[in-house]
Amino acid sequence: MSKTKAYATTSPRSPLGPFEIERREPREHDIVIEIAYCGVCHSDIHQARDEWGGSIFPMVPGHEIAGKVTKVGARVEKFKEGDLAGVGCMVDSCRTCEPCRRDLEQFCERGAAMTYNGTEMDRKTPTYGGYSQRVVVDERFALKIQPGQDLSGVAPLLCAGITTYSPLRHWKTKPGSRVGVVGLGGLGHMAVKLAAAMGAEVTMLSTSKRKEADARRLGAHEFGLTSDQATFKKLGNRFDLIIDTISAPHDYNAYLGMVKVDGTMVLLGVPPQPAPVHAFSLIGGRKSISGSLIGGIAETQEMLDFCAQHRLVADVEVIPIQQINEAYERMMKGDVRYRFSIDAKTLA
Amino acid sequence: MSKTKAYATTSPRSPLGPFEIERREPREHDIVIEIAYCGVCHSDIHQARDEWGGSIFPMVPGHEIAGKVTKVGARVEKFKEGDLAGVGCMVDSCRTCEPCRRDLEQFCERGAAMTYNGTEMDRKTPTYGGYSQRVVVDERFALKIQPGQDLSGVAPLLCAGITTYSPLRHWKTKPGSRVGVVGLGGLGHMAVKLAAAMGAEVTMLSTSKRKEADARRLGAHEFGLTSDQATFKKLGNRFDLIIDTISAPHDYNAYLGMVKVDGTMVLLGVPPQPAPVHAFSLIGGRKSISGSLIGGIAETQEMLDFCAQHRLVADVEVIPIQQINEAYERMMKGDVRYRFSIDAKTLA
Repeated sequence: MSKTKAYATTSPRSPLGPFEIERREPREHDIVIEIAYCGVCHSDIHQARDEWGGSIFPMVPGHEIAGKVTKVGARVEKFKEGDLAGVGCMVDSCRTCEPCRRDLEQFCERGAAMTYNGTEMDRKTPTYGGYSQRVVVDERFALKIQPGQDLSGVAPLLCAGITTYSPLRHWKTKPGSRVGVVGLGGLGHMAVKLAAAMGAEVTMLSTSKRKEADARRLGAHEFGLTSDQATFKKLGNRFDLIIDTISAPHDYNAYLGMVKVDGTMVLLGVPPQPAPVHAFSLIGGRKSISGSLIGGIAETQEMLDFCAQHRLVADVEVIPIQQINEAYERMMKGDVRYRFSIDAKTLA
Repeated sequence: MSKTKAYATTSPRSPLGPFEIERREPREHDIVIEIAYCGVCHSDIHQARDEWGGSIFPMVPGHEIAGKVTKVGARVEKFKEGDLAGVGCMVDSCRTCEPCRRDLEQFCERGAAMTYNGTEMDRKTPTYGGYSQRVVVDERFALKIQPGQDLSGVAPLLCAGITTYSPLRHWKTKPGSRVGVVGLGGLGHMAVKLAAAMGAEVTMLSTSKRKEADARRLGAHEFGLTSDQATFKKLGNRFDLIIDTISAPHDYNAYLGMVKVDGTMVLLGVPPQPAPVHAFSLIGGRKSISGSLIGGIAETQEMLDFCAQHRLVADVEVIPIQQINEAYERMMKGDVRYRFSIDAKTLA
């Protein structure tokens, strides 16, 4: 076991503070990653504050991890010491159920081992996340990061990147596809970058005109102001795919009106209450409203390779771990462009 | 013009009664069909009573038409006198928009010419449906019916058949697919027959245990009693596709729980109010809730040929036109197994 400095919270109403965890000695398929950066995901806040229920304390959040391999187990094949590596939302799964065999470990029928606020597949050993100096993980759930990239911006790809890349790929985004992105936050800004890199015609859909310039800088070709009802008419039946990143209540039917025949609106955000859907909104064009959850390990690797090839990283504001509580407050106000990335050296 | 006996209603609160319409002389691409049977669709009632708004009176309902070709225009190629032919929900469309070019005339961007309660593409000439002795239609919107079948049971295929066949095909039902059918009415009984003929494992989902025997007779392999909450748990994550034919309010989220990873619940019925959908119901398995509307002309022909090959027709109760008002009342109580089919000879 190796003592590892971390930041944890001990109850839904406590701030995060210094905490010491133990990481296991690497087993034969494990690698040890010295963490360089860890992105701060909105779900870190939800879980730290137990807003989804069932939180396990003490909790060390963080599932957007990028760093360097410092040790490998005897039978590790994919990594060697000195390689760059990442860890996303999962550290293990049953590996045998139908979704796991289809490389959809996020839908593991036994429930994947989440990187934090969960347990290993023994369903006993708690998992601790990336607000820490190092992590020990089976190489099968570690991702290769190509050198020469800014690791502070690579880290958020492990959740925000794959969460937007996966639905773009699943719903077959290709050059000329018309993609609408609802909301310009951590997920939305990656959706814009990735869809544009795939050759899509990207429209940012936002309630705030102030987002337009940034959206265009990130790669959006058009901007639709969703606080203006005329926008919904103007963009009627336009999109092959709408990527909806919003967790605030909003009218799905209005957005479905902008989806074209056989198109899909995919939900990544979870509003607090169910939202009314009218059957006519779907029937009049064989439209779909769907959901997507991160992505499997193989697809996460594909996404990292795609981003390296297209020189894409997240737009981040690097913070020392000591500013994490302030960062949470700023995120609650939408005051970050577009992801905080913790410099893990500041844990030392 | 040819005078044609029909049954019409003149206002939302009037009963249907004898009425005379004029059918146009066949143009060069037209055929004249002497109607043998016309199925009675639930949407006939909605429109006759103006429950969807915008109804045009006088109205001759009926869009499940089967009969015999008695005359063909000079340039008709597909039909000759004496052939059997059918007409479904549409008699024309713009033929040039993207959906029309994709054989999805039901989503014509100019709005297809509906068989009744609509206008021809000139947007002036009213259309009258199948509660009549004959219909004149462009051969492009007429379907070939193979001989040797019971036309009273073929007629309902033109709407109830294609409405269920199209989503089964679009969502790739194949041998071994697990298909749930919600509701055993006109649409539901065709969904069961068609899904079973495609080799699917079919489960009837109904609130009434009394439907079980009939569902099994029609081809269902399993029965799930949806008035029992335990059913939703027992059948959790089971179906590749749920065909939902119900127009009464029901909890989509509960049904989505029975859809497996990457599966779809497709709505054919339109409940009066929008129904709440929780994002978690979709995200936790990349599930979709979708809609489907009849089917294009090419697919309707494919469906008729499939049904002829598999010796499938609708289960009907044949009525004289004089019983149409009573039939409507019985349909409102669900008292028909599973479609009324009007014997058009009784119009004479």
